[in-house]
Amino acid sequence: MQRVVRFEELDEFDLETDICVVGFGGAGASSAWEARMAGSEVTVLEQSSAGGGSTMMSACEMYLGGEGGTALQQELGFADSTENFTNYLKACFGDNLDEERVAMYTQGGPEHFAWCEALGVAYKRGYFPGRDVVAMTGDSLQFTGNERSWPFTEVAEPVPRGHLPADADHRGGQVFMSTLLQRVEELGTDIRVDARARQLVQDKHGRVRGVIAKIDNKPFAIRTRQAVILTAGGFVMNEQMTRQHLPRYYPIDNPHGNPGDRGDGILMGVAAGGHAINMGEAFICIAHYPPPELTFGIFVNSQGQRFINEDIYLARLGHYASEQQDKKVYMLIDNEHFARPAYQEHIEITAVGETIEEIETDAGFPPGALQATVQYYNEHAACGEDPLFHKAKDWLKPIASPPYALVSYSLDHLKPAIFTLGGLDVKPTGEVLTPDREVIPGLFAAGRTVAGIPRTAKGYASGMSVGDATFFGRRAGRQAAALDRS
Amino acid sequence: MQRVVRFEELDEFDLETDICVVGFGGAGASSAWEARMAGSEVTVLEQSSAGGGSTMMSACEMYLGGEGGTALQQELGFADSTENFTNYLKACFGDNLDEERVAMYTQGGPEHFAWCEALGVAYKRGYFPGRDVVAMTGDSLQFTGNERSWPFTEVAEPVPRGHLPADADHRGGQVFMSTLLQRVEELGTDIRVDARARQLVQDKHGRVRGVIAKIDNKPFAIRTRQAVILTAGGFVMNEQMTRQHLPRYYPIDNPHGNPGDRGDGILMGVAAGGHAINMGEAFICIAHYPPPELTFGIFVNSQGQRFINEDIYLARLGHYASEQQDKKVYMLIDNEHFARPAYQEHIEITAVGETIEEIETDAGFPPGALQATVQYYNEHAACGEDPLFHKAKDWLKPIASPPYALVSYSLDHLKPAIFTLGGLDVKPTGEVLTPDREVIPGLFAAGRTVAGIPRTAKGYASGMSVGDATFFGRRAGRQAAALDRS
Repeated sequence: MQRVVRFEELDEFDLETDICVVGFGGAGASSAWEARMAGSEVTVLEQSSAGGGSTMMSACEMYLGGEGGTALQQELGFADSTENFTNYLKACFGDNLDEERVAMYTQGGPEHFAWCEALGVAYKRGYFPGRDVVAMTGDSLQFTGNERSWPFTEVAEPVPRGHLPADADHRGGQVFMSTLLQRVEELGTDIRVDARARQLVQDKHGRVRGVIAKIDNKPFAIRTRQAVILTAGGFVMNEQMTRQHLPRYYPIDNPHGNPGDRGDGILMGVAAGGHAINMGEAFICIAHYPPPELTFGIFVNSQGQRFINEDIYLARLGHYASEQQDKKVYMLIDNEHFARPAYQEHIEITAVGETIEEIETDAGFPPGALQATVQYYNEHAACGEDPLFHKAKDWLKPIASPPYALVSYSLDHLKPAIFTLGGLDVKPTGEVLTPDREVIPGLFAAGRTVAGIPRTAKGYASGMSVGDATFFGRRAGRQAAALDRS
Repeated sequence: MQRVVRFEELDEFDLETDICVVGFGGAGASSAWEARMAGSEVTVLEQSSAGGGSTMMSACEMYLGGEGGTALQQELGFADSTENFTNYLKACFGDNLDEERVAMYTQGGPEHFAWCEALGVAYKRGYFPGRDVVAMTGDSLQFTGNERSWPFTEVAEPVPRGHLPADADHRGGQVFMSTLLQRVEELGTDIRVDARARQLVQDKHGRVRGVIAKIDNKPFAIRTRQAVILTAGGFVMNEQMTRQHLPRYYPIDNPHGNPGDRGDGILMGVAAGGHAINMGEAFICIAHYPPPELTFGIFVNSQGQRFINEDIYLARLGHYASEQQDKKVYMLIDNEHFARPAYQEHIEITAVGETIEEIETDAGFPPGALQATVQYYNEHAACGEDPLFHKAKDWLKPIASPPYALVSYSLDHLKPAIFTLGGLDVKPTGEVLTPDREVIPGLFAAGRTVAGIPRTAKGYASGMSVGDATFFGRRAGRQAAALDRS
């Protein structure tokens, strides 16, 4: 299927509007809101029968901070400078950082949080200090990534930036999105569900002038006076694309997203001259906590070597686990701290023993290798030190109360949750760029349809994807609405 | 710049031909040869002032085998079954393997080598058994990759597959390409140099019908009756693309290729509906040999841990070095085997000492970590064993003759040679595919413009890129020439 049709060759349109937003998840709804607020006529196309997207399925944590801190951070006593936040994101994404985008994000955090509250979403002035994926205490502020872990602690002051709707447990996405969708509707947005956008309409000069959707199994052509905004999610549900772009993780047994994450937005954008980048990167989750005491264990590879500080965020573990030569990793833990991880069903107990030597032999490690690792670790842990990977003192204790367990967290049986981090190259305004980084007139994108702030699992933190999608979705809507109509 | 123009909107063409080949390197010349042999009229566009491409700059080693072995392999006493070759390639590229492509390649090796010889390129019936990047003995057959290293030895019988023009030292590319270019010319091919292809011509149904080039600074439109074949190399010279797709290696101080490797072919193919895949992968060279005795050293990361068997191929080392947390790696070697690597200028001596402890302290390793690594290594090396990474016995000897040197091979100062391994998704016939894996009529591609056999540095071996480019270049030319003319 050709994903772009020539404007000059179309005779008539079924609808004319200022802006057409493709996809009604977090990014799409945020851009529709801004575009309507700025006075544009907006039609939203949603391929499923209701809005919400992957944001609605998430806890809707947003990773926000900077400029001294959001209202929530400040009221709970946490200052967060733009510089500190920027340093943290630099350490997270390194070579891969989009500096312009980060500058806008680290300056706009407090305003974005204020917008969330103004929509009518409640955030509780409570800070959860523990180590968990999502606070189950009803509190709205928590650490969600690698802020308290080495090497991040070397460059940035740890500040909690996970902003979670109040008392939502894991259902923050429903709380947030039902509110946002309602607001967008109240603004008089034309919302069409069961409407899958299939093709962009582009004129001979390259300007995007509309969309062709499939509604009631028939083509439905929309002419846009200002812009099309692609917010159709990532591509984790697209078998062909995951095979081609994420061979490291393919086949993906546990795709994290909604069924519409088939890459439609990315593919339409590329067909119109856009540039798909970062396509080989994905979020990959190995949830080795909660319970937090599992952090007292150590991870080793097939050589019996440690490769990470165990107090890191789950996606950082996923990243490094996938880089081990045979993708096999194991947690060694003693009886005092043994537990089953709450969210990781598919672990396997490889060996249990009264001594490390017994475990080593049973599991087939190189002779002496695991023993040497444990001896080195224990010796320093006893002094509150981890010379290799600098795990924080709070999680250091010799592994010394038998029996011991070796638990496999290897990728071949783990079925880790995965979603994609590659997409269209866009300006922070959402304008879609060609490979020469020229703007494609009339085309915007946001959310996981673009390569946004989070670019690798190595530096990911919960809340970065929803934070990025809603923050830059708004900017795309605003920028599109400022265009001349024609 | 729009990289595709609409056929229906063009009034006239400057030239009409059956096939236009974009780029006159190894892939382009091979496809032109086949297309002419099949009776098609062929125009070749070369952006520089002479043909040759990156193949001409290389040693022109070709990685060939299978079907019992090439004439060279067989005459030198090496049998190489298709199954054995396939098993090796599977171990090299794993999840990333293009099975259809590999099947064709492992069956067609002997015929392809016969073609090379029939062109008039001489290959000497001599086998070089040593460990070197390119045999300097004039011999034409050698091991070039990880064939004799773990874990490859577990799945495939080691067979040498590097086929090198005779007595060429590092100038095999000149020997081979000057012959091939001459043959292509003799066949009456219309060759245009200083002619950079800029845009594809595509009709409203998606069929590619020509190319627009820039010649004498003016547009020059070519209408093709059969096909356009994109063989314009990779993108290592494209600043924007390397920044976006290879952030891990950016900036690339030592791009390995010709100045025309700007991604033109990939970008034109994508503009016509093609799908760029594997874009984040590249060949990266850390040439830690020759001299071969450097293989007696051990590589460690900043934690003082070994991470690889040191008898592996240089690109596999490059791959794993780039995955270490801070991209820092060091070789520890004793006085008996110390030497400077022949091809890696930018190494730095980090520490020298009479004891490992002294080195460890001077270099700032975690206390005891390097000592533990060396003790474990030495203890087993003395018995001819490497329980961690299974370095071959020939390269195992305790590191025990002081003084010792620690040599940094870290990426930040090493300036490793790099070229790109991502490109268009194509069938083994060279037909360019859309993201839905539908064929784009009239469009073919080969060489580093496509994602070919070699897909990651981890499994690369010298000769795979030129082997793939010429082998599949030929198939693209043949397939294109079989199309109806219109």
